Formats: sequence, structure tokens, C-alpha cells
Amino acid sequence: MLKFEEISPSEFFYRNKEIAGFENPTKACYTIVRELVENSLDACEICGILPDIKVVINETGEGDGINKIIKIKVKDNGIGIPKENVPYAFGKVLYGSKFTLRQHRGIFGLGGKMAILYGQITTNNPVKIITSTIGSKLLHFFVMQIDILKNEPNILRYEEFENKEGWHGLIIEFTFLGNYYNSRKKILEYLFQTSILLPYMNLVFMDNYGMLVFKRKSSLLPKIPEETLLHPKGIDLEMLKRLISINKKETLKCFLVKNFQRIGNKIAEDIIKQLNLNPDFPVRKLKDEDIIKLYNIFKNYNFKKPSSKSLSPVGENLIIGIKEIFKPEFIAFNTRKPSSYEGHPFIVETAIAYGGNIPIPSDNEINLFRFANKIPLIYDSYNDVSMKVIKDINWNLYKIDIYKEPIAFFVHICSTKIPYKTLGKEYIANVPELYKEIELSLRKNARKLSAYLNKKRLYEYQKKRYSYLKEYLEKIFDFACKLSEAKIKIKKEILEGIVSNE
Amino acid sequence: MLKFEEISPSEFFYRNKEIAGFENPTKACYTIVRELVENSLDACEICGILPDIKVVINETGEGDGINKIIKIKVKDNGIGIPKENVPYAFGKVLYGSKFTLRQHRGIFGLGGKMAILYGQITTNNPVKIITSTIGSKLLHFFVMQIDILKNEPNILRYEEFENKEGWHGLIIEFTFLGNYYNSRKKILEYLFQTSILLPYMNLVFMDNYGMLVFKRKSSLLPKIPEETLLHPKGIDLEMLKRLISINKKETLKCFLVKNFQRIGNKIAEDIIKQLNLNPDFPVRKLKDEDIIKLYNIFKNYNFKKPSSKSLSPVGENLIIGIKEIFKPEFIAFNTRKPSSYEGHPFIVETAIAYGGNIPIPSDNEINLFRFANKIPLIYDSYNDVSMKVIKDINWNLYKIDIYKEPIAFFVHICSTKIPYKTLGKEYIANVPELYKEIELSLRKNARKLSAYLNKKRLYEYQKKRYSYLKEYLEKIFDFACKLSEAKIKIKKEILEGIVSNE
Repeated sequence: MLKFEEISPSEFFYRNKEIAGFENPTKACYTIVRELVENSLDACEICGILPDIKVVINETGEGDGINKIIKIKVKDNGIGIPKENVPYAFGKVLYGSKFTLRQHRGIFGLGGKMAILYGQITTNNPVKIITSTIGSKLLHFFVMQIDILKNEPNILRYEEFENKEGWHGLIIEFTFLGNYYNSRKKILEYLFQTSILLPYMNLVFMDNYGMLVFKRKSSLLPKIPEETLLHPKGIDLEMLKRLISINKKETLKCFLVKNFQRIGNKIAEDIIKQLNLNPDFPVRKLKDEDIIKLYNIFKNYNFKKPSSKSLSPVGENLIIGIKEIFKPEFIAFNTRKPSSYEGHPFIVETAIAYGGNIPIPSDNEINLFRFANKIPLIYDSYNDVSMKVIKDINWNLYKIDIYKEPIAFFVHICSTKIPYKTLGKEYIANVPELYKEIELSLRKNARKLSAYLNKKRLYEYQKKRYSYLKEYLEKIFDFACKLSEAKIKIKKEILEGIVSNE
Repeated sequence: MLKFEEISPSEFFYRNKEIAGFENPTKACYTIVRELVENSLDACEICGILPDIKVVINETGEGDGINKIIKIKVKDNGIGIPKENVPYAFGKVLYGSKFTLRQHRGIFGLGGKMAILYGQITTNNPVKIITSTIGSKLLHFFVMQIDILKNEPNILRYEEFENKEGWHGLIIEFTFLGNYYNSRKKILEYLFQTSILLPYMNLVFMDNYGMLVFKRKSSLLPKIPEETLLHPKGIDLEMLKRLISINKKETLKCFLVKNFQRIGNKIAEDIIKQLNLNPDFPVRKLKDEDIIKLYNIFKNYNFKKPSSKSLSPVGENLIIGIKEIFKPEFIAFNTRKPSSYEGHPFIVETAIAYGGNIPIPSDNEINLFRFANKIPLIYDSYNDVSMKVIKDINWNLYKIDIYKEPIAFFVHICSTKIPYKTLGKEYIANVPELYKEIELSLRKNARKLSAYLNKKRLYEYQKKRYSYLKEYLEKIFDFACKLSEAKIKIKKEILEGIVSNE
């Protein structure tokens, strides 16, 4: 009676494009720009190249009513994509280079392909790609589409050209039906917030209305994140069993030392002792109950926190950005030590800024700026873990009224895997470990801001008290002079000193 | 330099379980109960069976700290699953029976499998399934796991038993690590709201704390949704090209009439005329530009609205539910006519209720109850399209203060495809067509409520005015009597009538 069928991953995401940020022509337009810019930034930073990116958006006259056919072209100076990987990298969903233990902007291996797919289903045009890797003598030119039912690339044209200028990078160009008019504001906001975090980026943005240039202000690149081993804390059973199955030839001790961070010889021996086994025990002989026991030891063992080699926090760059934009009278900033959830290391950095150009929030809003792996998150802040933390904190403790004072919160999370709630990377899930780190970081800043505001309030109180008492000072002075019949010389300054308490 | 690799759909969702509602042990617990209950309800309603469902949750003592190993068992009296489909239906992601054009609770073919997968990776235990289809003489018993890397089922045990009692349905049982203590409130809220919409459901819920029974109050099932053809309005190019490729042998006219709702002979001929082709033109000869032209005609043609045969709105059931719970002094309810987005028909039903047990919202909250395909949506209301509509409406026009008065909003959307923003079905995307229908429906109710409140205010004004004037009535009466020197008999009642304006 029921019809059972299998669908391809392309088909799945084609049918459910809302979950990837393509729920309407306005949002689709924003998502496409964002995904392409992020791929370009990743392609530069992965190899320590200062990003030089050009985005051209061309709204054509065609379309249906408010939605127009838009041509987008993005060019970067990244590492490029090897010829043989191009078809799959752009034409096969769930295929990519970003499934590794290293901080990336992209993590789903999905964004660029969804953008191309969306263009294809709304305008029926293929995508054009030109790429060359570092040192390559050839430029590769592809015209292709995605066969959605099969989840396979369909190459319509391929040509090679001589790479005379030694260029490397990627140029991607396609058309889609979108509402650029309505999405423009969000796109500019996105680029603007990106430029705050990435002063080392050069970005030229052109559309039918004009040109916008985000000039490089610094040539200091953040450190390149390295690939790392898994941290044993929080790793799940499935992953543990997989590691065991691909390391069957190892001894138990070698297996532990080789496959995990923070397990050296001593700790490995300690763990093996708890398992009641010996170091030379062959991994292939581990029984199911041994594996579960090992898993539970991992859960409870007091390991060092995960290495942050795979991460690339922004650090002081955030303060520079905030100061440039908001010119606040006070900033509290701190970077937490690395922590982890489910074996993924992460670092939380937060700042609270006060005064300057920061507006007093209207209508019970909260000034919250969210960043994840250097991506500004613009949409859907209400359900974000950071928003939840801020709403849960009792700000009365700090004598801070976040709804009535010019306060802005900044949260940057970097991780080998950001737990986004949506494939469109709108907001971050309420993962307990993350929640805790954000809370601790914000509370630390809150204490500093509280101390600052207390001092400020005390100073203002004293100023008021002083001006109040000053009125009487003259009279007291005159009276004192009269009383002493001018025999004793009273210095006005001394009296003032007493009153002002300073 | 970069490592390119392909991952299986199981692997993808395993790595990104947050997007499917499994972001922490509390939420995972809620999501698992919800997915299983919804599968059971679908399995009953699809065939017009009155649902009889039993959910047993058993918190064991084991676990890590606050998270415990939980055993869940759900039993239904649905249509069961044919033996040959069981392994894939529970052990292969992106395989299922719900990819059809008919209203389902499930649409991703993902929920049940994610629940099993989550159990597997947190407790390493297999899932147990017993099922029998209607009229089958055998009960099928499976013990199985999912091979995540391959996205294939791994059957550990299979047995057949005689189906002596002619039972049909499904029993599913597995363990997972979750936080039941923290999720219990949301689970009960979910079941409670479900029972509002489904008075024809019998549900027994048991946990370590006791038993909760939602008794069947009516045996009137909503109509069974039927499978339908696509509506031409809003269909995308990809889908059109697919239909053409599987109908190559047809003539153009036959193709149009057979494959789309709302295209009869006359409309087909009209469309073909606009294409400058003739009715017998073979579909296989359609060129790319013809297809794009056809697509644009579809976009702009004035078709009848899509058939609602595939939909199953709740109608008056919603009013009954609201009255039972909130006992409001006023309800405005309306069901919109069917509409569609991207070829998917949908119906919006909304209600606004006032007074009774409805609380005045606190802290700028809004009393909004959201339902989609008869599922209550409990989490993440802030970004939902319904919330956006309510926030965008200028309520001053209706003289209604939604933040300060005891008002509750109810929105039910049913569709062959609900555009959820998350795979965890937390909230619905801002699709323009949907937004518009919700707005029109709510505005209609708002006008009714506004009229009611105006009348109420007028009545209260008059009551006040009357009681104010009444004070003087006695004096006027006495004075009038005196004036007439009691020669004319003045009836007090007449005077009262004049004052009260009634």
C-alpha cells in the first residue's frame, strides 16, 4: 500500500532547500553570496594567503515581478581546486574537502553546491568555473550542471588554457532567480561585519548600484589551523568503534597513543590498567564490553583540555573591530581556554562594550553580535545559544540593565565543528559545554563592566554630592570667616577638599 | 593538499545530528518521543484507523551523571511495515514511504532513523522491531543496527511468529542516553497539545513516575488525505524537466492533462497555443527554450487554486480543543481556501481567542500556539513565520494590545510539504505565500475580535455612564415630581430608559 523509495542526497536537499537557507528569493540571494565568499576565504586562509576577493552581482531585467534573474561572479586568489576534483566538488552533494578536524567556515560540504543547485532549478543555466592550483601551468575551465536524481556532475564543456601569469584561485559564475533588492541590506551588513573580524581581507563588491571596497588594513594573518587528532573526552561509541576497526593490527597501547590527543605513554598505560588488560593486547581482540568500558573511562578520565592547534581564534582583532565601529567608553574582552564537546575542541571569545555609539536597545531587544568560525551570523538570533545565555543570566546581580543601557555583546565561537541548528548556518544549538563556556566568559566580562559602572556611578554620585554641597560652601566659608573674625586664615581649598572627599 | 572525500547520508546526519533535533541529551529525549509518536499516528491515519498508542519510558539507573540510559518502547495499531521493507525503513537514511504528495507528519524520512541512530551511538545497543501488516498471518521480529559508514542496515537477528490474534501495527524498542528529567515537561506539553488536535486518539503514556492516559473523546477521524498530481503554479524548472523526461512518449496535450492538477483539455490547448505549438507535438521534441517558456506560462497563468484532496485540515476540532482548555469568552476562527507554494498545496487555519483562562502575556511575550500537519511545535517559536506575521501586523489598527490583553493565537498549517527551517521540525520558514495566507487569516480574525472588543468597550462605557447618571436620577426624579407638583405621574422606568440609551 505504501510506496517505499530511496532518494539521492542531492534530491534530499533539493526537496528541502529551506533548511539550507533557501526558503525565499530574498534569503536565497543572501545565502548564495555568503556561501561563495566563505568558500573563497577558506581557500585563502587554509594556506596562509592574504585574501583578495571580488564579488560582482548583476541584476538583469528578466524575472517574474519582484524576483529577477541575477548573475553572480566571485573571484578569489585561494589555492584553487585540482582539475580532477572540480566535477565532484561542485556537482556532488556530500562530497568535499571540509570533513576534517580543522577549523573551516564551511562544514557541511553543501553550501556552494546548494547555491549552484538553486541557480540551476530557478534559471536552468549551468555554472562556469575557472580554476588553477598554486604552481600549475594550466587554467581549467568547466561548464557543468548537477544531475540531481543521481547526485552526479554533468560536464557540458571543458577546456584548458595556458596559465601565463601564474594565477591561482577560483572564479565561479552562474545565474539564479532572487530578490536582490530586498536582500542587499543584509548582504552589506554581512560583508561589513566580516570586515570587522578580518582586517587582513581585501574585498571588492560591485552591483548595479555601485562599488564597495573593503581595503586591507593589516597583513597579519591569524595562524593557520592545523589538523589534529580526536580528543578522547566526549568521543561517541560509534567513532570509537570505527577507530578500532581501522586499527585492528595495532596493540592497545599504540592504538591509544597514535589516535588521540592528550594520551601519552603514561596515560595510555593507566587506561589499560583500568581495563584490566595489558599494553600489548591486540586491538582486534577487544570485545564489545571492553569497548564500552574504554568509552566510559574516556568519559570520566581527567585528560588535559583539547589542543587548540586546529583552531584559529580572532583575539585582539575583535577589540580593534569593536573600537573602530562603536568607539565605546568601555570594553571587557576575554578568550576562554580551549574546551570540547563530543571530541570537538572549541574556543569561546566574548566582549561586552558600553557607551560610545552603541544604541540603547529598543523594544526589549538585545544588542548581540554573533560570530562563528569568523562568520557573522545575521539571521535568527532569538534561538541562538548565546542569546539564551544572556537571557538566563540575572543581570541584577551585576546592577546592569541590558535593556535600558547602551550595551552590546559580542560572542565568537571557533571550533572544528560549530553545532549549527540549521544548514543555513543561522544559529547555534544549545550544546551544554558551549553554553557553559559562553556563560563563564560573559560573566567575567560582566563583573568587569559592573565594576566600571559602579565606579562611574560612585563618581557621578560624588560629583552630584559635591555640587550640592558646593552651594553651601560659600555660606560656610563666610560664616567661618566671620566666626573667626578673620583672625585665622581659612583656606577655601581645604574646605573644598573635605567636602569632595578626594 | 586538500583531502577530498565522499560521505554517506547516514554519516552526514550522524555528524550533524544537531540539525535534526539532537543537540543535547534533553532535546534528544524530546525529539525521540515525538518522532516515534508521529510515525505511529501517520501509520494509523493513512488508512483511517483510530490510533491506539502506548509509549513506555523507562529511566534506568545507569548513565553519566545527569544523563541516564533510557529504554523507550512505542506500540501502535497502524498498518505495519511489510517484512521486506523493515531493514531499509529503519536502517537506511533517505529511504522511506513519505516522499509522496500527501499530507504526512514526517516528511524527511529521517526522524525514526535518527532516533535509532542516536540510541546506537550513545548506548551501542541494537533496536528491536515487531511488526505485522493488516491481514498478515505472521509477526516479524527484527534486531538490527545501522552501518553508518555504508548507510545500510545490519540485521543481527530475525524471527517469525504466528500472528494468532490478527494484530497489526508496530512495536519499536531501543535504549539511548538522555536527560528525561529535564525533557519531561516538554514531552507532556507536546502530548497534551497533540490531544487537543486529535480527540480521536487513544494514548497511554507510562514512565517511572506514573501513567497518563489521553482517552479517545470522539471516533470521528479526519478525512484520509489522498495522493494528488502537482499543481502547475510554482513548480520549478528541475521538476518540469523531470516530468518531461519520464513522459517522452506522450503528446504535449496528453502530458499536460495527465501530469498536472487544474489542467483540463481547454486549458491545455490554451497553454499550447501560447507556446506556438500544436497539441500533438511530441514531448520528446521540446527544446530547452520551449521548456523555459512553458515554465514561465505556468508561473503567470491564472489556474484554479490547488486541490485540497491531499490535505487534512483539523477545522472545528481546533475550536473544540481551544474551548475545552481555555474557556475563552470569545473565539474567532477561520480556514483559508487552499493555496500553494512551489507546487505544494497548503491550507492555513487560524484562531484568535480572548479572555477566559488565557493569561496576559508577561515580558513582551506573545501567546502563540503553532501546529503543522497536526504536530504541535513547541520549540524555537521566535523565528517562526507565524510569529513574524503577528509581529509585523499593526495591532493599533484593531485597537488590540496583544502584549497587555489575555489573547492567544493559534495557527495550523497543513501541506504536502511543510517548509520547516530545521530537520528537527522546530519552526517554519518565511515562505512568502505562507506568510500572506497566515496574515489574511489572522487579520480576518482580528477584525472580528476588534468588533467584539469595541462592542464590549462600548457596553462597559455605557454601563459606567449609566451608573454615573443613575446617581443623579433620584434627584432628577424628585425634582421633576416637585416641579409637576405631582400632577403628572412620571414613571421612574421611563427616565431610566432615557439615561441608559437602550
